[in-house]
Amino acid sequence: MENKQFVLVSRPAGVPSAENFKLLDVEIPQPQDGEVLLRTLYLSVDPYMRARMNDRKSYVDPFVVGGAINGGALAEVIESRSAAFKSGDTVLGYLPWQLYSVAKASALQKIDPSLAPLTTALGVLGMPGLTAYFGLLDIGKPKAGDTVVVSGAAGAVGTIVCQIAKIKGCHVVGIAGSDEKNQYLKEELGVDATVNYKTGDLKQELRKACPDGVDIYFDNVGGQVSDVILTMINHGSRTIICGQIALYNLEQPDQGPRVQPYLLVKSALMQGFIITAYTARFGEGVRQLAQWLQEGKLKYAENIVEGFENTPQAFLGLFTGENLGKQLVKVTEPST
Amino acid sequence: MENKQFVLVSRPAGVPSAENFKLLDVEIPQPQDGEVLLRTLYLSVDPYMRARMNDRKSYVDPFVVGGAINGGALAEVIESRSAAFKSGDTVLGYLPWQLYSVAKASALQKIDPSLAPLTTALGVLGMPGLTAYFGLLDIGKPKAGDTVVVSGAAGAVGTIVCQIAKIKGCHVVGIAGSDEKNQYLKEELGVDATVNYKTGDLKQELRKACPDGVDIYFDNVGGQVSDVILTMINHGSRTIICGQIALYNLEQPDQGPRVQPYLLVKSALMQGFIITAYTARFGEGVRQLAQWLQEGKLKYAENIVEGFENTPQAFLGLFTGENLGKQLVKVTEPST
Repeated sequence: MENKQFVLVSRPAGVPSAENFKLLDVEIPQPQDGEVLLRTLYLSVDPYMRARMNDRKSYVDPFVVGGAINGGALAEVIESRSAAFKSGDTVLGYLPWQLYSVAKASALQKIDPSLAPLTTALGVLGMPGLTAYFGLLDIGKPKAGDTVVVSGAAGAVGTIVCQIAKIKGCHVVGIAGSDEKNQYLKEELGVDATVNYKTGDLKQELRKACPDGVDIYFDNVGGQVSDVILTMINHGSRTIICGQIALYNLEQPDQGPRVQPYLLVKSALMQGFIITAYTARFGEGVRQLAQWLQEGKLKYAENIVEGFENTPQAFLGLFTGENLGKQLVKVTEPST
Repeated sequence: MENKQFVLVSRPAGVPSAENFKLLDVEIPQPQDGEVLLRTLYLSVDPYMRARMNDRKSYVDPFVVGGAINGGALAEVIESRSAAFKSGDTVLGYLPWQLYSVAKASALQKIDPSLAPLTTALGVLGMPGLTAYFGLLDIGKPKAGDTVVVSGAAGAVGTIVCQIAKIKGCHVVGIAGSDEKNQYLKEELGVDATVNYKTGDLKQELRKACPDGVDIYFDNVGGQVSDVILTMINHGSRTIICGQIALYNLEQPDQGPRVQPYLLVKSALMQGFIITAYTARFGEGVRQLAQWLQEGKLKYAENIVEGFENTPQAFLGLFTGENLGKQLVKVTEPST
């Protein structure tokens, strides 16, 4: 058995590139008491990881230059020195970009592959699904008839937000960067109207898609799309700041129209939001999402890149809008 | 008896001036059934009235060019055609800038001058006091030890916000535009630290005044002061957008650093707020404010300009930072 690892070799200025990563041969680590040896099955690549490539603290600590990249992952236990797991168990954890790694048993969560397809644990039933669920319901408080606008609508979080908003009886408007994505949102997910932010007149198209203004804006993207929506918010509207992918690669803090006068005139709310605040309620979220999945009310899309060596490319694709739904890397097959 | 009225004769481009107003001789109107004839005692001039001088709808309708300016006022009933009021009663209402006016009885609120000084009904026990009370407590949710920063701290709302935050055990930092105002905030109101936004290094002084960052920002002003505070907010902080006086006189929407990345990283809230949303709870607010007043926990400052003809000057002074506390115009003495 050989082991490989992706490390961060330099911090990007602006858009990250393959040169920021390096593939190394490393030893297979030995588990100590209370630890397990893992074989990585799937790696999750997510937009928030861009912020960790900078050297300033965001809501998670930065990656270390020369150290392994890490993130959400599914893995199989191949050697256990903990009573909590046995060989062959499938686990969810926060793991390095490595073929084999060691983790503390207490930091892992056992996954039952018979309940739902394995990869849903990194998508609709995992962090992105929970982000959509708590962000939209807890902060957005959707009511039937509300107009809900979702930026990054075809992404891992956006696709779930759109569908939960439909379940709640809202008029849902999705914004994405290709006609193919927008067609998926409309035809597969039942979104009422879509806007392609790369083509056409954004302002005019958004006004047409939201004839009654905007009650909830679930923002995964930020930037100029958000500037336009700001001028359309209704009295008492709620803007959920979930991501700002349009800004992650900027070297300087970005300028835009001040939001405060709009929030004042409309008695409107804008709330930043990180899913870890809801850890205590994850069980509730997963149960409801799984039920909707079973009832056929919720669909999910995955974009799976094959091969560990392609992990950086899968990550970089998030910033060029290549993924529809959850972006994953399949490292290897489960042995069972 | 002669009657006089101030009308808006032109809309300001930028900072308003005396030329936007004109004093006219008008007839004394006759009350109809259900109405009363009023003699104006005090007029309230408030920053939000600047927005009404523009021709676009804000949260209140614009003034009409050629029509009377109106706003909060105290008046004495001199003729009543309503069972609800009798001659000599003191009332609070929304009245034109006129010596004598007629109002529907149903739109007026009776004031008992024996309970508290009359002018408190336009200040600490009126709209500004209630704005401070509900904005700080309901949106800001102050906890003992929180750092609360107040812009426009020496104004009608700001002085009350500072004191309620002190009552709640917070570390209170007031921002005002003169050393005299800041001295008042510290020595009379017990504010912990003050910053003069017109002199010195705003960023450095704010950081010194808030060594533990900012938990609550009660924003009456907006603009560059707010840009600095944005970089200092703590995880879970609450920004209450109560006014944006720094922006009211701008002809173009203003640009500033985008707030969304800061709100995201800090899981922070920003909420626009208009006091009329709390109408149903005004009784609760007035009772609590009156109790604090009686207990000596709350002080109030008034800046009273004498003479109806000086009403525009009193209003214009709001934008040059002349007032400490509530700006009022005394039109005439109560007869009783």
